[in-house]
Amino acid sequence: MRTQVAIIGAGPAGLLLSHLLALGGVDSVVLETRSQEYVAARIRAGILEHSSVELLESAGLGARLRAEGDEHRGIHLQWPHERHHLDFVGLTGRSVWVYGQTEVQKDLIAARRAAGQEVHYEVSEVELHDVESDRPFVTFVDASGARRRLEADVIAGCDGSFGPSRQAVPAAKTFERVYPYSWFGVLADVAPSTDELIYAWHPDGFALHSMRSATVSRLYLQVPNGTDPASWSDDRIWDALATRLGHGQNGWKLTPGPITDKSVLPMRSYVQTPMRHGNLFLAGDAAHIVPPTGAKGLNLAIADVALLSKALVARLVEGDDRLADGYSDAAQRRVWRCTHFSWWMTTMLHASGDPFDAELQLSQLRWVASSEAGATGLAENYAGLPISY
Amino acid sequence: MRTQVAIIGAGPAGLLLSHLLALGGVDSVVLETRSQEYVAARIRAGILEHSSVELLESAGLGARLRAEGDEHRGIHLQWPHERHHLDFVGLTGRSVWVYGQTEVQKDLIAARRAAGQEVHYEVSEVELHDVESDRPFVTFVDASGARRRLEADVIAGCDGSFGPSRQAVPAAKTFERVYPYSWFGVLADVAPSTDELIYAWHPDGFALHSMRSATVSRLYLQVPNGTDPASWSDDRIWDALATRLGHGQNGWKLTPGPITDKSVLPMRSYVQTPMRHGNLFLAGDAAHIVPPTGAKGLNLAIADVALLSKALVARLVEGDDRLADGYSDAAQRRVWRCTHFSWWMTTMLHASGDPFDAELQLSQLRWVASSEAGATGLAENYAGLPISY
Repeated sequence: MRTQVAIIGAGPAGLLLSHLLALGGVDSVVLETRSQEYVAARIRAGILEHSSVELLESAGLGARLRAEGDEHRGIHLQWPHERHHLDFVGLTGRSVWVYGQTEVQKDLIAARRAAGQEVHYEVSEVELHDVESDRPFVTFVDASGARRRLEADVIAGCDGSFGPSRQAVPAAKTFERVYPYSWFGVLADVAPSTDELIYAWHPDGFALHSMRSATVSRLYLQVPNGTDPASWSDDRIWDALATRLGHGQNGWKLTPGPITDKSVLPMRSYVQTPMRHGNLFLAGDAAHIVPPTGAKGLNLAIADVALLSKALVARLVEGDDRLADGYSDAAQRRVWRCTHFSWWMTTMLHASGDPFDAELQLSQLRWVASSEAGATGLAENYAGLPISY
Repeated sequence: MRTQVAIIGAGPAGLLLSHLLALGGVDSVVLETRSQEYVAARIRAGILEHSSVELLESAGLGARLRAEGDEHRGIHLQWPHERHHLDFVGLTGRSVWVYGQTEVQKDLIAARRAAGQEVHYEVSEVELHDVESDRPFVTFVDASGARRRLEADVIAGCDGSFGPSRQAVPAAKTFERVYPYSWFGVLADVAPSTDELIYAWHPDGFALHSMRSATVSRLYLQVPNGTDPASWSDDRIWDALATRLGHGQNGWKLTPGPITDKSVLPMRSYVQTPMRHGNLFLAGDAAHIVPPTGAKGLNLAIADVALLSKALVARLVEGDDRLADGYSDAAQRRVWRCTHFSWWMTTMLHASGDPFDAELQLSQLRWVASSEAGATGLAENYAGLPISY
């Protein structure tokens, strides 16, 4: 098999890259170790920032998003006895959209299938070869058990933090921060008790009221690392959410409902640089992980792919290497901006157990909620810096 | 002896309080363990924020400040290969003034002497008594060795972190953060190499180019805790400053000169609450310490005293206790804002040795320098929140 770009990973980064490359006249083949059903069903992020929505729309992927997604003007910031709305549209002219990663994934699968994109699911033993040469190739075992070889001009590593692409960059510099807490996430079949997301600081720990649709709520609680989801009863979960989210405060009520999914997500920041080695380019989680506070992971992957697709089209169609040569540095600037923002949101909102930290957090929350500069700073990072930031 | 307000401490907080009380028709007596010469000569902060300048002017203490002080529109933020000017006046309409605490102290001593203020220097064995009652008093040994008793309606603790007032608040909550680095400060008889302060991030550690006058430079280097000033030669100091401040970058030069003073300042954040117990009120360093990054210590003391003088005039002249009852909460809001800001400036600019921290710091510095919201957020905290914040 031969193609121009061998894309490893059929998550949002890999499929969006194949889509944008096709729009630019570049062929690709996508390899994925999981099944299509698994990839389409896994629960991930739910917030698309302004630039992500613009990019998906400009690529012809915005129809269902606009019809079924939910535009939010901002978020609520909450701490005991106080709730403040930050109006991103008023502050920055930019909104965010609630539209789950699972929905983005379905749209991408449908679009790539309609275009006849070659995607190999359930492959195994994926190995990258000769990435420093002009003739890199990937070997793998396909779903039928046959050994295959995929030759390409370029390999795009969109295979997340556990895929082989990351390891194929020798002597990469890595940066990591592990946080001393996790998110306990639940999905509940109940209408959200809020119009827009509530980010809540509480001495017991952070809580977040998010949503997937008009009938499905997505809720999170800060818990110690290593927490077993089974150790929390539904009643305990709803009680903790009610306390931390301010049930009863100014008449606001949290409505509980049937919990359909429980999971615990550890939190870390990770950055690997450079994002290119020879003819291997990394995008999305293969190069960086952010903690979920601030909803940057999916958006950062989309921004990487927007830059990378342009760079590869210029390189492979026009023979112009400048964007490809600048890709890692350009992407890293935004990666660190989002890594900082995610770290900042995380450390401002999660209880550390240190009373000095708690007072710093509350003073900062009050400042963000009362200062136009403070609110705008959060809004412009949350609702989205331009792709070319 | 009897007075309305017994003020412990003749630093800027204590003397300014006696000055503002006198303007409001309230008598005070000030006690100070050091000599007048020592208090007037000790080297401390050098930056007055907008609100501090306004307050000193409105109290008739602004003449020499306006004549000999130096108004700065902003600061320079520096890191390797980059220097950015933040224009506080353009961003917030507020400037800062370079006018040393020693000069403020001289102005206060002159003003209080002219008004016939009773100040007892070189007292010892200061003890506070019956602060919960309506007849609190202070006992001390005066400079001649005589035992004295000072009765008052109110005691104002302006005696810093080592004075007895802080300890006289029982069951106070305290918050503390000790930083793993210190500032090595030098005074040099050389014209400053910069028009406005340079705050410099560098992998070797933070550096600050400040100044006292057109002919005296004040410079700081981040050093490990426990550094002996004698272990750094003048050449080593100037070499380190040149490296960290960007000597040679875009043609900028650091001009060395004779060093007249060397000292090492440990850095910590400390807050004690409440700031009132019965008829004892704390102001300034007696209630809180900030690290010097961001120049908040003196300004916070001035803001405390501005609130406290109004509260005591209302209580003692008009018999209105509302401001006195609200003093601790009102002051604490600003205390925590400045404690957060000082912590933020400190942790953004000092090398921790962790490569992840370094990249977060650089991303944040780039954002502050390039985003109007980021720059305004720093400017409004640095140039000064209103006294009533």
